[in-house]
Amino acid sequence: MLTLVLNCGSSSVKFALLDLSANLTLLSGLAERLGQAGAVATVSRSEDKRSVPVPGGSYAEAFEVLRAELDALGVREQIRAVGHRVVHGGERFSAPALIDSEVMAAIRACVPLAPLHNPANLAGIEAAQEAFGGLPHVAVFDTAFHQTMPEVAFRYAVPESWYVQHGVRRYGFHGTSHAYVAAEAARMLARPLEKLNLVTAHLGNGCSVAAVQGGRSVDTSMGLTPLEGLVMGTRSGNVDPGLHEFMARQAGLSLTQVTTALNKESGLSSLSGGLGSDMRELEAAAGRGHTGARLAVAAFVYRLAKEVAGMAVALGRVDALVFTGGIGENSATVRAATLEQLGVLGFRLDPQANAQAVRGQSGLISWPGSVPALVVKTNEELSIARQTQQVLAAQTGVRA
Amino acid sequence: MLTLVLNCGSSSVKFALLDLSANLTLLSGLAERLGQAGAVATVSRSEDKRSVPVPGGSYAEAFEVLRAELDALGVREQIRAVGHRVVHGGERFSAPALIDSEVMAAIRACVPLAPLHNPANLAGIEAAQEAFGGLPHVAVFDTAFHQTMPEVAFRYAVPESWYVQHGVRRYGFHGTSHAYVAAEAARMLARPLEKLNLVTAHLGNGCSVAAVQGGRSVDTSMGLTPLEGLVMGTRSGNVDPGLHEFMARQAGLSLTQVTTALNKESGLSSLSGGLGSDMRELEAAAGRGHTGARLAVAAFVYRLAKEVAGMAVALGRVDALVFTGGIGENSATVRAATLEQLGVLGFRLDPQANAQAVRGQSGLISWPGSVPALVVKTNEELSIARQTQQVLAAQTGVRA
Ligand SMILES: Nc1ncnc2c1ncn2[C@@H]1O[C@H](COP(=O)(O)OP(=O)(O)O)[C@@H](O)[C@H]1O
Ligand SMILES: Nc1ncnc2c1ncn2[C@@H]1O[C@H](COP(=O)(O)OP(=O)(O)O)[C@@H](O)[C@H]1O
Repeated sequence: MLTLVLNCGSSSVKFALLDLSANLTLLSGLAERLGQAGAVATVSRSEDKRSVPVPGGSYAEAFEVLRAELDALGVREQIRAVGHRVVHGGERFSAPALIDSEVMAAIRACVPLAPLHNPANLAGIEAAQEAFGGLPHVAVFDTAFHQTMPEVAFRYAVPESWYVQHGVRRYGFHGTSHAYVAAEAARMLARPLEKLNLVTAHLGNGCSVAAVQGGRSVDTSMGLTPLEGLVMGTRSGNVDPGLHEFMARQAGLSLTQVTTALNKESGLSSLSGGLGSDMRELEAAAGRGHTGARLAVAAFVYRLAKEVAGMAVALGRVDALVFTGGIGENSATVRAATLEQLGVLGFRLDPQANAQAVRGQSGLISWPGSVPALVVKTNEELSIARQTQQVLAAQTGVRA
Repeated sequence: MLTLVLNCGSSSVKFALLDLSANLTLLSGLAERLGQAGAVATVSRSEDKRSVPVPGGSYAEAFEVLRAELDALGVREQIRAVGHRVVHGGERFSAPALIDSEVMAAIRACVPLAPLHNPANLAGIEAAQEAFGGLPHVAVFDTAFHQTMPEVAFRYAVPESWYVQHGVRRYGFHGTSHAYVAAEAARMLARPLEKLNLVTAHLGNGCSVAAVQGGRSVDTSMGLTPLEGLVMGTRSGNVDPGLHEFMARQAGLSLTQVTTALNKESGLSSLSGGLGSDMRELEAAAGRGHTGARLAVAAFVYRLAKEVAGMAVALGRVDALVFTGGIGENSATVRAATLEQLGVLGFRLDPQANAQAVRGQSGLISWPGSVPALVVKTNEELSIARQTQQVLAAQTGVRA
């Protein structure tokens, strides 16, 4: 029994075929430059990795390529469901949902909240329903995990009508990853998730922390959009809410120009003075004494440590801190500096363990007896596949 | 030897006459509705409080009234200096300054950073120089105390040119109050300020926390403008930086309308569902079970506790938490709830001591053996007067 997982962006489709019972990924890949000239799919299958052109470059044609690959593998008939990553589920979705016309309409109603992502997700679902007709399709939302946040955490102190009429509130993102690594951490700590207070830090190109109490999100650093909170690759994270007006007045920028700059020309990329947003390169440059790179890494860590401390307040007690995402899973430097700044909360690093937890290697990185900190490799595809099967099991009354 | 302290707003002048050697305030008051019909000055002098009309309603005429009062008291000739509160000193002022034409030009250069406040401060200084000619005038800046922040704390992760060309950075405000209560707390704890790591929380209509290490500010929650950070009376504090664009698109608001709403129709006032921003009334309504009031108070406390935890990261170790400002000095409820949420940092309330520290009564409110928390009545006039005298002493080579 196989599950196909799809993540449809505006010009790309990520896909993975999973066998949950055997804990295997049979096939994975990425179709890129869709809607442009030279659209191409990269298909990985155990050791083998190939590029296949996607003539025409539409979602439909990308799925044609994918179907041919599945046929070549002889597995297409074994697929039982398709799970779709959907970015924004608003207040409507606190769990994954079997897609029908009502669910499609509800995802469409969330387009204003994610004007770049939800339309692509919708178009991708429609094309996939054509290509993989007859199968159940399930939507798994990035925001759903955070719907358990209490009002003090999700409400902004802005005019009430902005919330009531326009849905202005904290939603939070990276939900699939936070939920997955929280459960994995509980397993690694050999303690029941229901009894654990965890801070999870997903640090990739986008970055967010979450406070996870008994497996439920009670606060997170991203908000209405994925721009709030931590310093990220090219995103600013928190700024003064008076900044937009100031830059409009002082530099004659439009609101859209300010917002675009905060999304695309900010974060590590701007703090480093234009060195880019790749943490590997910034660490190397910082090591050579590059001032901008040093500032970028230091500010990233400082803001991260402060947000983790805020999450500790949300939890009242912290049982462990979990690092994940490209930076969280690989940067021993960032983790060491973060734990050092969090000494006030009882964290203390085990430098040797920390040095070993890289390149997909999960494990504890804290000094014995101190508050546990660990690295957990995230796996959003696996989590989406599991959630997809759970929805189906619930539908048919069969326990997953 | 007397010091006159002036705080000139756009339609008001606060004044106080202090005798620093005798630790006395001889006269204080407020001229209001300047520039409008019915301008009036309220003058307090020990037990006596009177209203005096300010015909014309200009700064010059307000100072005429003040001079007459000083003459009636027979003290005008004993005034040695005038200290002015100035809101924004940019990166230029890290200390108070004797006002000359160069200093006036530098305050004028900071007008873009405080377009409402600095012009009023400048006009007030000019009128006061006319009215109190021959005396030295000193500018004491709200931002100066925070100029010791390190780059990780004061830089935003926004395009570098925004900082270099337009001065976009965290400045912080309430500096005079944070500095004053930090010094007072050290005195009350009988420990040298130089050795203390303090978090100071100034909670009035505007609210900010600061991390004060050895008497120097190393971080604070307000930023480029006084809108960032905590939930305040009518100000939102932190929001998602994508909010402005979202509201412009969804509700057709202009950037100025969004920013104005975040400054004037937000904070406690909006969370309470229109009950207003007075913490006394909100506490009373919350006590009666009013849902909006409960949310407003709870969100105020939650966001405050999270910011305090962030400041603990900035300090590495917290020796004490200091409450001040109208709410900090009077609301036992807010303080109790805040310390309860900060148990993770070792805070624990002494409920009896907390109940007693109201109406100007300073004191410890923490349980013996726990991390100290205290209430300190702020006194910005006294601090401005002292700083004014220190500038003069430094000028004349005499130690204050
Ligand atoms: N060995 C490494 N050391 C430091 N940073 C790394 C390392 N490997 C990957 N990263 C960083 O991880 C980030 C990308 O994370 P990833 O989770 O792959 O991104 P996305 O959020 O797009 O899924 C980049 O900043 C990259 O530099
Ligand atoms: N007894 C009290 N209990 C609770 N809040 C109080 C009390 N007295 C004053 N406050 C609050 O203090 C705030 C004003 O603080 P203040 O420092 O005077 O303001 P400003 O920042 O304008 O100087 C208001 O929210 C007011 O409700």
